[in-house]
Amino acid sequence: MTSTELPHAPARSSRTSVLHGIRDLRWETRDVGVPGPREVRVRVRRIGVCGSDIHYYTHGKIGQYVVDAPLILGHEVMGVVDAVGEGVTRVKAGDRVALEPGYPCRRCAYCKRGEYNLCPDMTFMATPPVHGALSEHVIWPDDFVFLLPDSLSDDAGALIEPLAVGVWAARKGEVTPGQSVAVFGAGPIGCTTLQAAKAAGATTLIAVDLEDFRLDLARQVGATHTINARHEDPIGRIREITRSDLPESHAGVDVAFETAGSLPTTRLSLAAPRPGGSTVLVGLPPDPEVSLDIVSAASREVTIRGVFRYANCYPAAIALVESGAVNLDTLVTHRYTFDQTPEAFEFADREKRTSMKVMIDVG
Amino acid sequence: MTSTELPHAPARSSRTSVLHGIRDLRWETRDVGVPGPREVRVRVRRIGVCGSDIHYYTHGKIGQYVVDAPLILGHEVMGVVDAVGEGVTRVKAGDRVALEPGYPCRRCAYCKRGEYNLCPDMTFMATPPVHGALSEHVIWPDDFVFLLPDSLSDDAGALIEPLAVGVWAARKGEVTPGQSVAVFGAGPIGCTTLQAAKAAGATTLIAVDLEDFRLDLARQVGATHTINARHEDPIGRIREITRSDLPESHAGVDVAFETAGSLPTTRLSLAAPRPGGSTVLVGLPPDPEVSLDIVSAASREVTIRGVFRYANCYPAAIALVESGAVNLDTLVTHRYTFDQTPEAFEFADREKRTSMKVMIDVG
Amino acid sequence: MTSTELPHAPARSSRTSVLHGIRDLRWETRDVGVPGPREVRVRVRRIGVCGSDIHYYTHGKIGQYVVDAPLILGHEVMGVVDAVGEGVTRVKAGDRVALEPGYPCRRCAYCKRGEYNLCPDMTFMATPPVHGALSEHVIWPDDFVFLLPDSLSDDAGALIEPLAVGVWAARKGEVTPGQSVAVFGAGPIGCTTLQAAKAAGATTLIAVDLEDFRLDLARQVGATHTINARHEDPIGRIREITRSDLPESHAGVDVAFETAGSLPTTRLSLAAPRPGGSTVLVGLPPDPEVSLDIVSAASREVTIRGVFRYANCYPAAIALVESGAVNLDTLVTHRYTFDQTPEAFEFADREKRTSMKVMIDVG
Amino acid sequence: MTSTELPHAPARSSRTSVLHGIRDLRWETRDVGVPGPREVRVRVRRIGVCGSDIHYYTHGKIGQYVVDAPLILGHEVMGVVDAVGEGVTRVKAGDRVALEPGYPCRRCAYCKRGEYNLCPDMTFMATPPVHGALSEHVIWPDDFVFLLPDSLSDDAGALIEPLAVGVWAARKGEVTPGQSVAVFGAGPIGCTTLQAAKAAGATTLIAVDLEDFRLDLARQVGATHTINARHEDPIGRIREITRSDLPESHAGVDVAFETAGSLPTTRLSLAAPRPGGSTVLVGLPPDPEVSLDIVSAASREVTIRGVFRYANCYPAAIALVESGAVNLDTLVTHRYTFDQTPEAFEFADREKRTSMKVMIDVG
Repeated sequence: MTSTELPHAPARSSRTSVLHGIRDLRWETRDVGVPGPREVRVRVRRIGVCGSDIHYYTHGKIGQYVVDAPLILGHEVMGVVDAVGEGVTRVKAGDRVALEPGYPCRRCAYCKRGEYNLCPDMTFMATPPVHGALSEHVIWPDDFVFLLPDSLSDDAGALIEPLAVGVWAARKGEVTPGQSVAVFGAGPIGCTTLQAAKAAGATTLIAVDLEDFRLDLARQVGATHTINARHEDPIGRIREITRSDLPESHAGVDVAFETAGSLPTTRLSLAAPRPGGSTVLVGLPPDPEVSLDIVSAASREVTIRGVFRYANCYPAAIALVESGAVNLDTLVTHRYTFDQTPEAFEFADREKRTSMKVMIDVG
Repeated sequence: MTSTELPHAPARSSRTSVLHGIRDLRWETRDVGVPGPREVRVRVRRIGVCGSDIHYYTHGKIGQYVVDAPLILGHEVMGVVDAVGEGVTRVKAGDRVALEPGYPCRRCAYCKRGEYNLCPDMTFMATPPVHGALSEHVIWPDDFVFLLPDSLSDDAGALIEPLAVGVWAARKGEVTPGQSVAVFGAGPIGCTTLQAAKAAGATTLIAVDLEDFRLDLARQVGATHTINARHEDPIGRIREITRSDLPESHAGVDVAFETAGSLPTTRLSLAAPRPGGSTVLVGLPPDPEVSLDIVSAASREVTIRGVFRYANCYPAAIALVESGAVNLDTLVTHRYTFDQTPEAFEFADREKRTSMKVMIDVG
Repeated sequence: MTSTELPHAPARSSRTSVLHGIRDLRWETRDVGVPGPREVRVRVRRIGVCGSDIHYYTHGKIGQYVVDAPLILGHEVMGVVDAVGEGVTRVKAGDRVALEPGYPCRRCAYCKRGEYNLCPDMTFMATPPVHGALSEHVIWPDDFVFLLPDSLSDDAGALIEPLAVGVWAARKGEVTPGQSVAVFGAGPIGCTTLQAAKAAGATTLIAVDLEDFRLDLARQVGATHTINARHEDPIGRIREITRSDLPESHAGVDVAFETAGSLPTTRLSLAAPRPGGSTVLVGLPPDPEVSLDIVSAASREVTIRGVFRYANCYPAAIALVESGAVNLDTLVTHRYTFDQTPEAFEFADREKRTSMKVMIDVG
Repeated sequence: MTSTELPHAPARSSRTSVLHGIRDLRWETRDVGVPGPREVRVRVRRIGVCGSDIHYYTHGKIGQYVVDAPLILGHEVMGVVDAVGEGVTRVKAGDRVALEPGYPCRRCAYCKRGEYNLCPDMTFMATPPVHGALSEHVIWPDDFVFLLPDSLSDDAGALIEPLAVGVWAARKGEVTPGQSVAVFGAGPIGCTTLQAAKAAGATTLIAVDLEDFRLDLARQVGATHTINARHEDPIGRIREITRSDLPESHAGVDVAFETAGSLPTTRLSLAAPRPGGSTVLVGLPPDPEVSLDIVSAASREVTIRGVFRYANCYPAAIALVESGAVNLDTLVTHRYTFDQTPEAFEFADREKRTSMKVMIDVG
């Protein structure tokens, strides 16, 4: 018997917030079908508002991705399993779950190597033309649905997504116990990256930002040093913090993470590592062509790595929160109901400096 | 001007406990010279008693290493810099330091590759014919002397050595955030290995031992689960703890550490990992030939790695204690004065089950 | 339009050699359906006879895998695409292809990490109850079908499979340019492993076997040294070949590969590496419990790795043969027609010492 | 008895070519002392002229390194051992040897980790104020002196140095069997890098240059494809060569090497890799600030690594030449006697496009 025959899994009519144009979110009711084989239908509870959601909301595009048809936003998503399709054994109705918002083709050379984030045929939520989860229900393949332990709050469940980015960044940076890291940008991704680096054993954790509000939060979640780049020279301070018995030329962090997506922080992130260290570009400057001192970085054998989403990070991210190594709840500074979704987006756009993570309580 | 001319660094007369035969420790006074170029003289403060010290004390040998001439034991050592030789800039008189107890030739292929623990020409304390540090003073090359932050206790300074073993074991096991580990043997090395694995991000930490006393301590320093192998089947319990949506055949820890040096625990450590996991042999069974199910381990692609001392672990170990990620003080269960050194050895030999680390306060 | 409607892909009636019991191969004609979505139907041309095929033929089982129902053997397989199902773009009818004989679930944690050889839900040819390819036709998922360049012979196409094992073994051994390796067992897997190690840059390649016939072939495909263990002490010779300015204790190969599946060679493979080197167990001794000097290996920090099939090796294996870095044709010493399949199995069983690879020309 | 007492090792008077200013090489006779403990004195036979030598010759500086005192150039050096100091066992008088031209402090954290190329206290030949080897004799520490097998020519012995750069570059690129690489710049470093990549198993080897003369040589030493960037679009051609069943967006080489040190090739080297591939910057553009599309590289998760000299590459480089995997002799296109040293430099400067490696036969 397939799931379509199950009496407990009728099609759902789902209230949805749909982006029709710049700053034009409209309420719609869309039919959500029944989960097919190896699919799970989830009653959405929490959606975190991400910078990319806001960018689509305010600009109607990100790079090559253009919202040229109505689009449902939202990809930091947690909910409760509502129905499962044939062959699903990982979860059952009633389970609290986080959804990894992208699934790959499962067959190409990238997927077979485990690098599914680079699969050319990804289906990724809230990236045109794929809809996101700002809806009462969503159907998703069971292998990208993850059971949440009881100890995780609903908010934390939604924020597994940005934590997965941080876990991936820390893996890319190959952070090991006792190392020093600098995180440029102390927004949500900066704070999850910093915590992931701490969980990987970094003991010197330097957060750099322009806003004391964010630096204070970074300190709450593990930063051992904070630098407000309005008032201090980040590179000078980083060298001071990391100096050893080696000459000044060999001061610097083991790993620098750029999470702010600006040119100045990108430049700083190349200058911050010690010789032989590495830079992980989590954010990216808005212009494709940037003028950088790559010569100095390369001649110090600094390895530069980019981050494009993540692969195989959800289980680790969930385990880290469950163990107490990572604290996501502290990052939620503002909260809106589902009905207030447009206000949530307006607020998140307007108050970047005074907010960290804006959370929508879908119900 | 060389250090030999410095008025503040005269030769020292040093009271020393010397092993002359099985259970035969004698007090001697030995001259300790002045530190040569790039050498440091240290006034010893703390010496931890290690299992290998006890083994030399009770058996007069370990494998190929035989005490056939009087030998000074002790290689878990912390003290205060007393004098420095020419060219020393890393530390100065008065600094509290930990001594990494082995230094290599610095020139062979192993040293050049950074694998100095495998250098064929190591000088390692308390390994015949090289003297250890159970003495009021010791002279050591400056590159194997490490400054201790104020926040570390003297005891912790001496225990950087067993922690270095744990850090090396966790590196060999390639522990990453969110992983599960099992540590067989919850003695001092088991507890430092467990903490090093935790510092590297392991979130499921299973300690296995025969003594509740040790398991309780393991729990205090981070074990999330403990198994007393007298009462429970370790492999069955480990599979239960690590089960997932995968079949039973694929349960098991990501990394198993053997630290007890017995045949039963060696066998368990090969059975404990999931397919694709790894086993790190920190202890070693006493007999060279052992009967093992290596077939099953290999066909599950479990990687088996050995540990021989450590390389480049002191800075990380010190940083981990300083950051609070690792707690060494809790491991010191018994304490003796320098004068009581023979009693300390007798006690440590007799009370293995009811003690963890025995510390000698040299003064 | 799906493939089932394509007029050029009718069902096929396929002549098949089926194992009904020990040494009991019977001819049958089986219907082969049409390829479904993302499936390929292949007209088989060449099947290499593998040791595991012979073992099923002569013993009716391998370890836990028992032939308790009629089974088609053969998993070293090459052919020509006969028809393709819906959505197949990698190959088209008429293409010469090699079939990777196992495909995984594509959804579990192992598959997502790229370790699909450890997937608990593998479908692997000629492993009960999954049929192999000793048949005129076989249908297989397109993502495990690989286009063969014109420069590869049909024989080489079939032998991509044992080469994939060698490529995987060399990856596990992390062979790098300029290294030394010893391969214990110079059969087909030994010879492909040796060639894969050479392709990865090994410059000292030592083959060890009991048969000069095999050692001569090993030399033809790249061995720089051969040791007949009937006449020479392998470890003594290996130390002689690999000696350097380091002490005798530090002689040994960088990587030892065990491919013979015997206890003596397993023991030798643990003794052959230098300190810090590694042992890769490609074959496995027949008894689960084996008595080994793992203590010595572990205290030299020799890493021991097992090999279970392979993952992501077909593209590399094909490229290596195409480039000329690996020579597979030389390994085919005996050839049989499809009609002679039973004779091929009898010969391969009887003449292990005087044959290398026995190839069946299916047509 | 120390070496200073050995009758066969008197001090030497050595004819030397010394750079006194731009294009101002003068002959001098300098005393070369006796080798101290663990030192070797070598009678120089061959010196390869490197681009950096020419740059000092024509510009008097490279970046921060300024020739403000007379400097002996030359660091690609091979010779015969003339005398050895106390404790030297690796080589003896009469041995043909290659000299690794830089030695580190052996004590700092970088040296202890095996990353000695990043040691802040390197002594590197022909880098002000350290003299090079353009002299009849040179004294060097024994651990950076390597015995040459008989099968290597004297020229090859001198060219172990640029090959070591290539070996290091291939290691940094983590080239594995079956991969594709593109090398931008087909000069001496490009050709050794290409060969090192081939030795590591690369099967698609694309050389890109502006000169057919160099591309022809690259093909002779292993390039499977050559692109003259004057006539063809390198990126378009690379995508064509590396296309697979994946979309165009996922074409590209596994590893791109930049060896020309120009801005255009640096830009190409970032565009050439497939998603998840890597770029190794061996050369470096002359200006510290360069405008690059790092955004595209990072969002494809292309890893960018720099190369600063090399560490632990001489043994592998020598083994590769001895095995025949790498051919260095073909790279020597022009030859000068020691007396013709100034002419050699003038020629090498003038005829970059029509020469590959210029070799000086010191005698």
